[in-house]
Amino acid sequence: MNPGNTETSLQIRSLVKGSGELELSLVSVPIPQPGPDEVLLRVEATPINPSDLGLLLGAADMSTARQSGTAERPVVTATVPEKLMKAMAARIDQSMPVGNEGAGTVIAAGSSAEAQALLGKTVATFGGAMYSQHRCVKTAQCVVLPPGTSAAEGAACFVNPMTALGMVETMRREGHTALVHTAAASNLGQMLNRLCIADHVGLVNVVRSEQQEQLLKAQGAEHVCNSSAATFLRDLTDAIAATGATLAFDAIGGGPLAGQILGCMEAALLRSAKEYQRYGSTTHKQVYIYGALDLGPTTLTRNYGAAWGVAGWLLLPFLQKIGPEAMRKLQVRAVSELKTTFASHYTKVVSLAEALQLQEIAVYGRRATGEKYLINPNK
Amino acid sequence: MNPGNTETSLQIRSLVKGSGELELSLVSVPIPQPGPDEVLLRVEATPINPSDLGLLLGAADMSTARQSGTAERPVVTATVPEKLMKAMAARIDQSMPVGNEGAGTVIAAGSSAEAQALLGKTVATFGGAMYSQHRCVKTAQCVVLPPGTSAAEGAACFVNPMTALGMVETMRREGHTALVHTAAASNLGQMLNRLCIADHVGLVNVVRSEQQEQLLKAQGAEHVCNSSAATFLRDLTDAIAATGATLAFDAIGGGPLAGQILGCMEAALLRSAKEYQRYGSTTHKQVYIYGALDLGPTTLTRNYGAAWGVAGWLLLPFLQKIGPEAMRKLQVRAVSELKTTFASHYTKVVSLAEALQLQEIAVYGRRATGEKYLINPNK
Repeated sequence: MNPGNTETSLQIRSLVKGSGELELSLVSVPIPQPGPDEVLLRVEATPINPSDLGLLLGAADMSTARQSGTAERPVVTATVPEKLMKAMAARIDQSMPVGNEGAGTVIAAGSSAEAQALLGKTVATFGGAMYSQHRCVKTAQCVVLPPGTSAAEGAACFVNPMTALGMVETMRREGHTALVHTAAASNLGQMLNRLCIADHVGLVNVVRSEQQEQLLKAQGAEHVCNSSAATFLRDLTDAIAATGATLAFDAIGGGPLAGQILGCMEAALLRSAKEYQRYGSTTHKQVYIYGALDLGPTTLTRNYGAAWGVAGWLLLPFLQKIGPEAMRKLQVRAVSELKTTFASHYTKVVSLAEALQLQEIAVYGRRATGEKYLINPNK
Repeated sequence: MNPGNTETSLQIRSLVKGSGELELSLVSVPIPQPGPDEVLLRVEATPINPSDLGLLLGAADMSTARQSGTAERPVVTATVPEKLMKAMAARIDQSMPVGNEGAGTVIAAGSSAEAQALLGKTVATFGGAMYSQHRCVKTAQCVVLPPGTSAAEGAACFVNPMTALGMVETMRREGHTALVHTAAASNLGQMLNRLCIADHVGLVNVVRSEQQEQLLKAQGAEHVCNSSAATFLRDLTDAIAATGATLAFDAIGGGPLAGQILGCMEAALLRSAKEYQRYGSTTHKQVYIYGALDLGPTTLTRNYGAAWGVAGWLLLPFLQKIGPEAMRKLQVRAVSELKTTFASHYTKVVSLAEALQLQEIAVYGRRATGEKYLINPNK
């Protein structure tokens, strides 16, 4: 295959109109031609991560979603609640491609030696617009998958593995020695659990059901706390005391959980305190919110002294902060353990058109633990 | 006067009993004798700062307060709500002296040259237990007040001046160029306003009434936003856009304000954004909570991207972090501007016994802006 720019390729687009409507559709775009230091990828696998859903679905109320168009070219429309339109201001009336990461075969290459060397290879990459049949990317953004690793196995080698590695790296750089993680039964959570076991890092897994608790325990997790149990706060304090965790990564965001974690950390620290500290423990306790499974407000009860912080955390700014050399080290590790520590599991593989079927959106749009989709744009 | 250790001295004590009762009283303690590098102070002025009230009143419900004892030796008791007793665990049944800072005359000195040099001088100091008629302190913790500066004028030369200076220093060290301050009409807030005017630092003053707005404007404040005005969020966004503030110090703590500030910072940043940033502005926005005028939960709506943080902030850990040399520079400045930038104003001067009268506690315990008490333990 030697695509010229007269051929076209399908791509998922997300558009929030000024009228307050979200429109998802497939558009036909010319297949791009790679520049000297670029390659053209036939995208064969690209996951639907929670971090993609924010861009794909915007602030739309998906209970209002309607489908039109054809089976091959579905169009989904949904209403964005008026009070949330302000948050959409900067993307209004811009048709946006979606998809943070993916993998596929290099079917054309630019003139540089680096690009030519990738011809025919299966590579993983990131950088947006991966929900496309074809994607031009810089060679520097490509990682060649090891022999015997499929595009599906390598499609998710950036977001989740680098996030798990980034959490442990953050822990080390900020002087903590153990971690708390919420929504810990997620694909990412299972990865982090494997990583912490491999690296002998104490990890407190917070989950929302007994089923998830059993899942993680079956995977060797030592500390799993079920937030739906009546004994949750005591269990969490015990697990934090046992591990010495003073850092948490929270994917939930809304509700009392972030504050409860800080409170349990403080309680664990005060168990060993010798005398009254009027401003609480002087040990810094930190929660990073990196997700928004609960879009409601975070409520902090502030009963944990003054040495605490809650902050947003995102992978890309973190990687920029640590710099290219440190980032490369994490990447090498992620790729080398793609079938073990950083393996992803999907419940379903869909085409671009299938990804825009209401019944599929209803499943992956729930952001539920264990429901992870992979798109094969060339299915 | 040459006190031996047979003489006694009065001191305010705060005791939370295991039974759930707060007891405030005056106790008679032997006058301590200074060690070689210590001096004995006759305490003549010590302010009731918001930061003292936490220790003095604990988590007691002061609407339940009863008074007993005599006019000279009053005893105040109040109930600590059962659910708040957990937070009191580490101080239960310990009779605690109170008072962060104060000033007075050195009436006895240890053998060292440094101590002897302070004899007869009026000095300011800090370190707790200042609600006492006499207090032994290390010479290193004393600052000699300039000639013509009274104990009352120098009594508050640590907490508020160093906090105001610490806020501006934090701003500079963390790469911000302007500040937001809440409860800005407080004694500390007026100080910070004078400091920012003197140092040409942009300051957005957030107050709760028109009266406070006028007070600060009369003191030369350029940006004052009234949180009780219907236009508050727009006013705040405008003021933040005008100053470029990406850092706030919040004395309120509870409620939506900290999150609203982050939201207005984000809105101000996005006004100048050229294209859609799916995770919001990449400029870090920070709110430090340093007070708890509202003891209720902090509610964060998280509509301000991922580059944000909320954290506790306390003066002493901050000073420890910057180290003794940087701290000394701030102290020298605080003392040299005690009658101008860092002047404190009090509504009432009371004795130790008067400070334990219910009608006085009702006033200073409200933590209301403009109601600031000074104790003269030797009145």
